[in-house]
Amino acid sequence: MVALGAGSVGVVTPQSMQFDEPLPLQSGSSLAGYTLAYETYGKLNAERSNAVLVCHALNASHHLAGVYEGQPKSEGWWDNLIGPGKPLDTDRFFVIGVNNPGSCFGSTGPMHPDPATGQPYGSRFPVFTVEDWVDAQARLLDRLGITQLAAVVGGSLGGMQALSWTLQHPQRVRHALVIASAPNLSAQNIAFNEVARRAIITDPDFHGGDFYAHGVVPKRGLRVARMVGHITYLSDDVMDQKFGRSLKRDEETAGPAPYAYTTQDIEFQIESYLRYQGDKFSEYFDANTYLLITRALDYFDPARAFGGNLAAAMARATAKFLVVSFTTDWRFSPGRSREIVKALLDNRRDVSYAEIDAPHGHDAFLLDDPRYHGVVRAYLERVATQASAAPAGTAARVKGFAI
Amino acid sequence: MVALGAGSVGVVTPQSMQFDEPLPLQSGSSLAGYTLAYETYGKLNAERSNAVLVCHALNASHHLAGVYEGQPKSEGWWDNLIGPGKPLDTDRFFVIGVNNPGSCFGSTGPMHPDPATGQPYGSRFPVFTVEDWVDAQARLLDRLGITQLAAVVGGSLGGMQALSWTLQHPQRVRHALVIASAPNLSAQNIAFNEVARRAIITDPDFHGGDFYAHGVVPKRGLRVARMVGHITYLSDDVMDQKFGRSLKRDEETAGPAPYAYTTQDIEFQIESYLRYQGDKFSEYFDANTYLLITRALDYFDPARAFGGNLAAAMARATAKFLVVSFTTDWRFSPGRSREIVKALLDNRRDVSYAEIDAPHGHDAFLLDDPRYHGVVRAYLERVATQASAAPAGTAARVKGFAI
Repeated sequence: MVALGAGSVGVVTPQSMQFDEPLPLQSGSSLAGYTLAYETYGKLNAERSNAVLVCHALNASHHLAGVYEGQPKSEGWWDNLIGPGKPLDTDRFFVIGVNNPGSCFGSTGPMHPDPATGQPYGSRFPVFTVEDWVDAQARLLDRLGITQLAAVVGGSLGGMQALSWTLQHPQRVRHALVIASAPNLSAQNIAFNEVARRAIITDPDFHGGDFYAHGVVPKRGLRVARMVGHITYLSDDVMDQKFGRSLKRDEETAGPAPYAYTTQDIEFQIESYLRYQGDKFSEYFDANTYLLITRALDYFDPARAFGGNLAAAMARATAKFLVVSFTTDWRFSPGRSREIVKALLDNRRDVSYAEIDAPHGHDAFLLDDPRYHGVVRAYLERVATQASAAPAGTAARVKGFAI
Repeated sequence: MVALGAGSVGVVTPQSMQFDEPLPLQSGSSLAGYTLAYETYGKLNAERSNAVLVCHALNASHHLAGVYEGQPKSEGWWDNLIGPGKPLDTDRFFVIGVNNPGSCFGSTGPMHPDPATGQPYGSRFPVFTVEDWVDAQARLLDRLGITQLAAVVGGSLGGMQALSWTLQHPQRVRHALVIASAPNLSAQNIAFNEVARRAIITDPDFHGGDFYAHGVVPKRGLRVARMVGHITYLSDDVMDQKFGRSLKRDEETAGPAPYAYTTQDIEFQIESYLRYQGDKFSEYFDANTYLLITRALDYFDPARAFGGNLAAAMARATAKFLVVSFTTDWRFSPGRSREIVKALLDNRRDVSYAEIDAPHGHDAFLLDDPRYHGVVRAYLERVATQASAAPAGTAARVKGFAI
């Protein structure tokens, strides 16, 4: 047995669900029979009113919390937030994590065989949008017998999914927690995604997306993609605090080492860190998944069908919201979260907003800043009270909306 | 003849100067006999007191202003600032532009033959620093018979050279104009440079820097490098204004086009723009030069020899300064310019500082914002008055400093 601290969900086992009915997609295409990998933590109550869906961002999965048997270092990506007594309390909520289709952590993706050909999908894997992922998640909830979520929670791209849930299935969501997110990408956000995609696509080992058949992986492109992504996840300040202008060789010398005067080798600590992150990422992440997920980010724009009017787009949402941003997040700045808040207020919706003064940039949503976790904890306590207090009434209301 | 507007220096001819004496470098290495490409505009006065050296940044050269014979679109990169009656007035100043060694616009660089082998230097071209460039520029001035500059001017990396002039050759500089610059790179700045370098170095066509012999150019890497660089030159806001979330196909349709749902092809305008910039750049820029120049940026850090104390480093400077920053420049933010200003004030130096409220980001230093140009014009008028009023005294002072 693994020794686990108080508050851990402990050892967990991933599950999978097979869907034979094709999933129609926004592009007009569809995904044939597919598998969704998912995990659950805590217990669904008798009223089925305490389910919380957690949506993942680019480089994450259904494995939210706990560890796998015999793998003590396999903590889920949001283990600091989710567990017994934690802000998203698995003693009160039935928490669900699902790997989105197109990802590379268990659900059907570009590396899996296309039933039409028997060969890996590769470049022929259909384009997914945030809305498509929400539909896939909704089907999983149908199978689990959950008609309404106490809450849907997500950070970054996960926050976009949470937001989209309130628009696509308003009757199925009582609360949405939209963290470090945005109502769409800015031109600069798209630009960074495009740099990453070009690095991957122009890697000779990409083979137009059909590299599986060649027994190679476009690691050069994946490394560069991860490096550029990583820069946008951190604040300028936290990079200066963590790495500054320290040299790699400073570790070996008593004082600051002299410059080595090299253009191709590592000189600064930050370079060493980024190369390490890039190398690690290129060992496990799928290149087609990277393209697909960054494109889903680019495409997300609920205001688009309303001529850019986000308030008009948000009129459909009936959920209550907690919106959280971080002051030093320059990828999805607080201003982007305030756009969401304003659009909700324009519709006289119930919205709580917290702007957390955290130094870590976009990555802050994954860290356990006490003010941030305090806000999430307090909000979810309110949700939990409602989930246990009024399940029958809730169910009646849901029926009223003809789900 | 080319029709030119009032204020142009007109048709110019690049010149070159051969140096047979090796140039010793900070790395301990040296550059054997070499050539510097340069241009001059205006006339050196009899007292030789009106020379202004303009230092270039990453993607620029000695060609500051005017056009080449028969090439009406060949305007110099700072043509909006330099010319008769312009802020840097060639009716008053003798302006010098010099291509730094290691660059790819005429001066000796990695693509030229190493006299020791007869083969292109490639990966064996020595590493240059800002200080080395200043030394090379100083030698050119020696040959031109200029013992003291009325001013040294530069933006971005050019501003670092201007700053370094005041530290390496304090007696040879009366004024320094340091625009959109920084006293060193932040970890984030180095990180972006490293992404660009990794894209180039891991391009299979780079061949460790010796691609010339293979008859190829690492264009894939150069494209990605340019794309990531370009993002950092523009402000988030100006990108949104210029491109926003517009689709490439919006041009072809009456209203907004529907999404094409593609992960590999161009969808958004910003992607089209970045790819175009990357393609264009990869056609003419040298990959080794890109590594060398970004590394010179990384290495520049005059406070390093003083335990990080910039005020102590700046104590050597005796020039008067104009420091200019731009509010939306997130590559070298106003805060970085204020570090320079503070270090100068700590030494009771004469410094003027202007923070220009311009929307364009780092690129603003190349544009003709009237407030920005007004500040530079006013400052240089003061310099011009001094240059013409006190040449003899200046010469005496210079002699007093034993140049």
